[in-house]
Amino acid sequence: MLNKFCKKPLYEVTQTMARVATGAEPAELVIKNAKLVNVCTCEIQEGIDVAIACGRIALVGDASHCIGDGTKVIDAAGQYIAPGFMDAHIHVESAMLTVREYARAVVPHGTTGIFMDPHEICNVCGPDGVKAMIEDAKGSPLKAMSNVPSCVPAVAGFEDTGSSIGPDEVREMMTWDGIMGLGEMMSFPNVLSAEPNIHGELRETLKADQVITGHYSVPETGPGLNAYIASGVRCCHESTRAEDVLEKMRRGMYALLRYGSAWHDMPIIIRAILDNNIDDRFACLISDDSHADTVLNEGHLDYIVRLAIKEGLDPIKAIQYVTINPATCFRMDHEMGSIAPGKCADIVFFDDLQDIRITRTIIDGDVVAENGEMTVTIEPSKFPDYTYNTMHVGEDITADSFRIAAPEGAGSSARARVMEIIPNHVGNYERLIELPVEGGYVEADKSQDVMKLAVIERHKATGTKGLGFVTGFGFTKGAMAQTVAHDAHNLLVAGTNDEDMALAANTLIECGGGLCAVANGKVLSVLPLPIAGLMSDKSAKEVADMNEELAAAWKDMGCVINSPYMTMALMALACLPEIRLTNRGMVDCRTFEFIDLFTE
Amino acid sequence: MLNKFCKKPLYEVTQTMARVATGAEPAELVIKNAKLVNVCTCEIQEGIDVAIACGRIALVGDASHCIGDGTKVIDAAGQYIAPGFMDAHIHVESAMLTVREYARAVVPHGTTGIFMDPHEICNVCGPDGVKAMIEDAKGSPLKAMSNVPSCVPAVAGFEDTGSSIGPDEVREMMTWDGIMGLGEMMSFPNVLSAEPNIHGELRETLKADQVITGHYSVPETGPGLNAYIASGVRCCHESTRAEDVLEKMRRGMYALLRYGSAWHDMPIIIRAILDNNIDDRFACLISDDSHADTVLNEGHLDYIVRLAIKEGLDPIKAIQYVTINPATCFRMDHEMGSIAPGKCADIVFFDDLQDIRITRTIIDGDVVAENGEMTVTIEPSKFPDYTYNTMHVGEDITADSFRIAAPEGAGSSARARVMEIIPNHVGNYERLIELPVEGGYVEADKSQDVMKLAVIERHKATGTKGLGFVTGFGFTKGAMAQTVAHDAHNLLVAGTNDEDMALAANTLIECGGGLCAVANGKVLSVLPLPIAGLMSDKSAKEVADMNEELAAAWKDMGCVINSPYMTMALMALACLPEIRLTNRGMVDCRTFEFIDLFTE
Repeated sequence: MLNKFCKKPLYEVTQTMARVATGAEPAELVIKNAKLVNVCTCEIQEGIDVAIACGRIALVGDASHCIGDGTKVIDAAGQYIAPGFMDAHIHVESAMLTVREYARAVVPHGTTGIFMDPHEICNVCGPDGVKAMIEDAKGSPLKAMSNVPSCVPAVAGFEDTGSSIGPDEVREMMTWDGIMGLGEMMSFPNVLSAEPNIHGELRETLKADQVITGHYSVPETGPGLNAYIASGVRCCHESTRAEDVLEKMRRGMYALLRYGSAWHDMPIIIRAILDNNIDDRFACLISDDSHADTVLNEGHLDYIVRLAIKEGLDPIKAIQYVTINPATCFRMDHEMGSIAPGKCADIVFFDDLQDIRITRTIIDGDVVAENGEMTVTIEPSKFPDYTYNTMHVGEDITADSFRIAAPEGAGSSARARVMEIIPNHVGNYERLIELPVEGGYVEADKSQDVMKLAVIERHKATGTKGLGFVTGFGFTKGAMAQTVAHDAHNLLVAGTNDEDMALAANTLIECGGGLCAVANGKVLSVLPLPIAGLMSDKSAKEVADMNEELAAAWKDMGCVINSPYMTMALMALACLPEIRLTNRGMVDCRTFEFIDLFTE
Repeated sequence: MLNKFCKKPLYEVTQTMARVATGAEPAELVIKNAKLVNVCTCEIQEGIDVAIACGRIALVGDASHCIGDGTKVIDAAGQYIAPGFMDAHIHVESAMLTVREYARAVVPHGTTGIFMDPHEICNVCGPDGVKAMIEDAKGSPLKAMSNVPSCVPAVAGFEDTGSSIGPDEVREMMTWDGIMGLGEMMSFPNVLSAEPNIHGELRETLKADQVITGHYSVPETGPGLNAYIASGVRCCHESTRAEDVLEKMRRGMYALLRYGSAWHDMPIIIRAILDNNIDDRFACLISDDSHADTVLNEGHLDYIVRLAIKEGLDPIKAIQYVTINPATCFRMDHEMGSIAPGKCADIVFFDDLQDIRITRTIIDGDVVAENGEMTVTIEPSKFPDYTYNTMHVGEDITADSFRIAAPEGAGSSARARVMEIIPNHVGNYERLIELPVEGGYVEADKSQDVMKLAVIERHKATGTKGLGFVTGFGFTKGAMAQTVAHDAHNLLVAGTNDEDMALAANTLIECGGGLCAVANGKVLSVLPLPIAGLMSDKSAKEVADMNEELAAAWKDMGCVINSPYMTMALMALACLPEIRLTNRGMVDCRTFEFIDLFTE
C-alpha cells in the first residue's frame, strides 16, 4: 500500500536518504546514544544513534558522520527509543472528541498512528462525515488512517440510521486519500451466509488491494470463523476467550487484543499467548474505544502496553504488538512500525522498559510532544455545517412516549425479556423477569434493578421507536439519555420513570445531542455533543470534566458500574449477543430475528 | 499487492469460500487428518483437515461437513502438510532450463512459487526477453513471479550487453502482469552515491508500490548498508558473514540465506540466528542459482531446508523461512505462504519433519506432483525467434585473439593482477603473480595454476574484448568456454593455451552459445544453450546429463573444484569483489575503476 500519511513519500527522497546516511549531506535531526527497542529482531541495542531527514530515518547505528551545521541533536543517553505506537482499531468518536483533540490527547502518550473506523459519524452523516473526519485529521501530526465504514447501518433491516453504505460507496471511498482498509465487518452473519451486498463490499475492498478489518464476536471457531477469514477478513478485535485468539492466529488472522475504556478483554485473552509457546507475530494491542478521561488519566496504547507487561508479556513483545505487528497487518510495514532506514521517523522515548511512560514523541522527524504536552500547535477543528444540527425526532416526546402496554391477558405482572449487562464487556444476557403491571402498562422495577429503555429514531424524523428493559446498572432514580447509542446513534433513553426519561430526551434534542443525567424533574448534568450528536468541539480536558460531572450524577442516581453510558450505548447495537433493542424493536442477535418483548 | 498468480482472485470467490466453509456447498478437495505445520503460530497441529475450492483454502480444522458428492478426498493420516515453498530470489536461467522445464524439476520438490529475476536473458534480449520468460511460465503451474531486472548492464560503463534498463523501462515493465518487484539492485555503489539513473529505477518501483530486492555484497554494515536500506531496498541475499545477516535483520531488511549449487553461504550465516536469541521473521532461505543436476539429485528449497535443519534450525522455523517469511517480504502474505482460510491452496506433503522429502505438491488446489513426478502435463516451451541466434561476435577468433602483450620493459616475467577464485563463494581475491613472458607475450602458467581468461563481446559485434588471468581451478590442459558469463553473457573463454581457447570460442559461436570443454585441439564436450546463449530447450535430465559429461571433461582436464563453469562465470561480473574482467578490461570492484592488468 502506498503511504499517503508521511511528510514525503520515500520515492521522492531516496537520494537524500542515501546522501544523509553516507554523510554527504547533514541530517536534520540526530538522536544520540539511545537504547533502541529493536522490534525487528526483538532485542535491546545500546548506544544507538538515529539520523533523520525529510521525515524519515536515514541511518540507525553510529550517526557521528551525519551531524553537520544545522543538525539538531537530541542526547538520549539513558533513554529508550521505540517506534511510535499504532492503534490498529479505534473509533475516535468514542472519545467524544474531534480527531485533532484526540490527537492532542494521545500523541503525548506515544501514539503516532491510528487506523480509525469512523463508522459512528458515517451512520449519522454518511460518507461526507467520513470526509469531515479525514479533513479534520489533516490538522494534526497524528497519522490518522481511516477505514471505510463497512456496516452502516450496523445490522441492515433492524434499525434506521442517517445513511447507508454499500458496495458502490466502498468502491468510491477506497479511492480517497486518507483511506486505508475497510472498517470492522460486523455483519458476520451476512459474510457467512454469502449475502451479496456484504460480499460486494468485501470484493470492492480486495479489488482496491486494501485490508478488510473484522468483528467476529461469537465464541465459534469452526465453520463460521473459517468462512469469515476465507472471505478475506484479516484481523479481529472481538475475541473474549483465549481460545478465540489462539484459533484466529492459527488461521493467519491478526488478533487485536482489546483494552478499551469499557472493554477489558486483554488480560483474559492474552493468556492464549502467555500460556502457549507460539509465534505471536499476529498479535496486536488495541483500544477500540477510549474515553477522554481514560486517555488523560491513564494513557492510550502506552497504558495498554503497561498492563500487558503486568500480565507477564515481555516488554519488547508488547511494543511489537503496537508497532511492527499492526503495521504488517495493514501491509504498511515497509513504511512504519520499526526504527529502521527508510521508514517514517515516528519515534517515542521513555526511561523504564518495565513501566513505560512516554517522555517525547517524534512524528515524521518532528518533535511533536514532550513531557505530556504537545510541542506543536494544532489549530481548532472546523467541522462543516452538515455535521451540526443532526437531531430530527418525529414525535413530541412526553412521559407518555415511554409507556409500554402490557401483553394481552397479563395480570399483575408480565414476563419480559430483559437485557442484563456484563460490566466491562460488550456482551449481554437475555434474562426473563417478571415485571409489575399497573393500569395496563408494564413498569420499571427498582426492586429488581430493572429500568425502562427507549431507542428513538432521530435522523429522518420517522417517528419510530423501540421500548424495552435493562438490568444491571443499579439506578434507583432518574433517567439518562444519549445519542452515542451504537451504531445507529439514535436517541437512547434509560430511566426509572417516564417523566425523567422525557426530560432527558428533550434536553438532548435541544442541545443537538450528547449525554445527560436527569432526576426528579431536574437536569443534573449534560454533556453536549453538537457534532453529529457524537463529538464535542471542546478539549479532552473539558470533555473529561463534563464526563466526571455526569459520572458523579449517575453515581448519585445509584449506578454501580463505571462508564454506564458506554455499556448502555451498546444496548442498541444489534450485532452483539445476546439480545438488543433498536428503534424498530427487540432483536435476538444470535438468530437475527425480531422477538417479542414479552414471553410466556 | 494484488495477486495475479492464482487460479481465481479472492475478490471473485469470497461467496464460494463462505459457502464451502459453512458446508452450504461441497469442497472440491478435502485433505483429511493431516499434521499441519502451522507457520502462523509456529506449531504442529494434529488431526487437521483442509477444505479447498476455486484454488483456495476455505477451511482449516474439521472439514467433515465440507465433503459432498464430487469432493475429492486425500487421506493424509500420518503425513505432514505445510505451505508450498517459495524461493524469494532465483535466476531460472542459471539452471540453463526454460521456466517450464525448471518448474517440471522443482515442483515435485515442493516449490510452488518463485520470485525470479530474469536479468540474464534481459542482458541479452532486453525487456522482450523478460516477456518471453513470463509467457513461458504461464505454461506451468509454478507461480513464477518475475522481477524487473534492475542492473542491465550489471555495471553500466564497464561492460557491453545486448540491452539496457533504466527508469523508463522500469516504469513501463512495472505495469506488466507477471511482474512483482525490482530485481536485485547490484549497483549498490550507485545507490550509495545517489546516482540519478539508479535512483530513478528505485523511484519508479516504489511509485508502483512494488518491492525492491537487493544485492549488497560488501562486508560493511555502517553508513553504506544504511544508505542502501534507506533507499528502499527490502531484502538482500549477498550476506557472507553472520554479522551481515544480523545487521540487515536489525534494520528491517529481509536476510535471504543463500545455498545455491555453487554458493554455500547458509551454514555460516545462519549462525546469526542460531547463536542469538532473536526474532527471525526477516529470515528466508533461497537458492539464487540452482543447476539442473542439483535440483534433480538433491532438490531445491526442500534440500536447503533439510540442510538448515541439520545446522540446528527448528524444522518449523526452517519452513517459515520458505513460506510465510518470503510471502511477507513481498507483501503477499495475505495471499500465499500459509495454510489458512482464503489463501491460495499451495500445499506440500511429507512424512518426516526432521528429514523433509516432499511426496505430493498441490498448487491452486490441484495435485500437480506426486512421488517426485509431475502429475499434470506441461507443454514444451516455445520461445520466440528473437531469443535464438544471439551470437554476434565482431572478430574472427583465432589463437592470436588471445595473445597478451607483455608490458613495456618486461623481462622474462611480468607481474600480473590475477583473479583467485574462492570455491563455492561468489567473491574472489586479487593476487599479484609473476608470469612468464615469451616472445613479447605473457603466457598462462600451469606450474602456478594460472590460466588465461578472455571476455569477448558477443551481442552487437563491437569487436571488443578483455584479456586477463585466473587461478584456482587446477586445469592442466585445454580450454573451456561459455556464454553464461554473468551478467553481460559475453563469450568467456579460459584456457591453458591459445589454440584450445580459439576452438572453444568458435564451437560456441557455431552452436548459438552454451558451454564447452576442449583439449588438445578436440572438442571433448559441449552443452548448447540456443535460447539467448543461456538456456537449453531440453529437459532437466538431458541438461544434467550433458553437464555431467562436461564435468567429467573438466575433471579430466585437471579441474579441482565443483561447478567450475559457475565460479568461472562470475569472473566477468564487475559488481563482486575484488577484481573482475569484462569485455572492456580489468575492473577493481572495490573502487569501480578500470585497472591495468600488470603492475610493478
